[in-house]
Amino acid sequence: MITLYHCDGARSFRPLWMLEEMGLTYELKMLPFPPRVLAKEYLAINPLGTIPFMIDGETKMTESSGICYYLGTKYGPSPLVVGLDDPAYGAFLNWMYFSDATLTFPQTLVLRYSQLEPEERRNPQVAGDYAKWFLGRLRAVEAATANSEFLCAGRFTAADIVNGYALRLAGTIGLAKDFGPNVRAYWARLQERDGYRRAVAAERKAGVEQNVAPRVRA
Amino acid sequence: MITLYHCDGARSFRPLWMLEEMGLTYELKMLPFPPRVLAKEYLAINPLGTIPFMIDGETKMTESSGICYYLGTKYGPSPLVVGLDDPAYGAFLNWMYFSDATLTFPQTLVLRYSQLEPEERRNPQVAGDYAKWFLGRLRAVEAATANSEFLCAGRFTAADIVNGYALRLAGTIGLAKDFGPNVRAYWARLQERDGYRRAVAAERKAGVEQNVAPRVRA
Repeated sequence: MITLYHCDGARSFRPLWMLEEMGLTYELKMLPFPPRVLAKEYLAINPLGTIPFMIDGETKMTESSGICYYLGTKYGPSPLVVGLDDPAYGAFLNWMYFSDATLTFPQTLVLRYSQLEPEERRNPQVAGDYAKWFLGRLRAVEAATANSEFLCAGRFTAADIVNGYALRLAGTIGLAKDFGPNVRAYWARLQERDGYRRAVAAERKAGVEQNVAPRVRA
Repeated sequence: MITLYHCDGARSFRPLWMLEEMGLTYELKMLPFPPRVLAKEYLAINPLGTIPFMIDGETKMTESSGICYYLGTKYGPSPLVVGLDDPAYGAFLNWMYFSDATLTFPQTLVLRYSQLEPEERRNPQVAGDYAKWFLGRLRAVEAATANSEFLCAGRFTAADIVNGYALRLAGTIGLAKDFGPNVRAYWARLQERDGYRRAVAAERKAGVEQNVAPRVRA
């Protein structure tokens, strides 16, 4: 049994979406955000206190995009993973790593210094620097979706899940208004997927059942 | 022929080190830092202006840790890559993604707001927040190397290359003084490797030959 620790709207949504797209059985454990402050017992499970945390037998993982790659290969073969012999193999891997290292981290700066920090520690300059950074890097997604429904390989893959989550986060921190037309249409397409809707529904249901309030969305 | 675009000391050192460990043939093109300001012609090659940029036939990649995974699998099988059937497969993937998304991005904040920005835009609070963040996440490396020479699978792998680079960067931005004893010993071990030394030598040689000055180290 796969166990996934998740906070409402957090990047653990990536593996949740992947699990739903693959139709795997899993247990979803909801935590209040930030867990290292509001659920200190979690530190005994994941000493870093970060989200996600996935347990699959002896395997324990903390990296949201890495977990998606793990699931797609370990429980594959799956069309969600682009294989070694596909001409899009390098592009696929690049999108997998790009999603978090390049596209999500700048968003966490915007969130932190415009919303999460106490008033006196907020910093509009830094929030602005990294909103700009995010939108600069997002040009790669705008270009990739100009003539293509999905990011690579001519089909929906885990690359769309992990980068799609970055677009979801952009919506919650007020950056979606600056999406280009291709990104806007691409994100609308992703949200229409059954797998995406099932993941959103699973997140809501687990939050209600486990009595963890959803986070306020911008 | 593999072409790698690199700036002295930048995270493109990861694929450079990987290429040297694998003994692959490649061309190293040095750029001044930051290339999007000092080598504007580079934007025609990589519109994001980021480093690294790797070209291998039709494959083009920008993510330093992703390129290492690509090289290890495309030009493998290699002992530098932990395979699907190894019990350490999930741990290996996690370290691959952790290296840049979790361990390197916070360092870029320290560098930016303590050194790169003009005086009036520097920000000791943010630099301090992310020095603390980096050192917090580094506890995972401290724990993993307590009883083990390398991060996972009981041997040197690409996971050590990509996280080892984060330790190299820490040295150049003044964070290495706060390494724990295990990280300190681990980083010393990595620097003794022939592959690491060859990569450092290749970086220096290309810088001299292409007349690109090395960056000042803290």
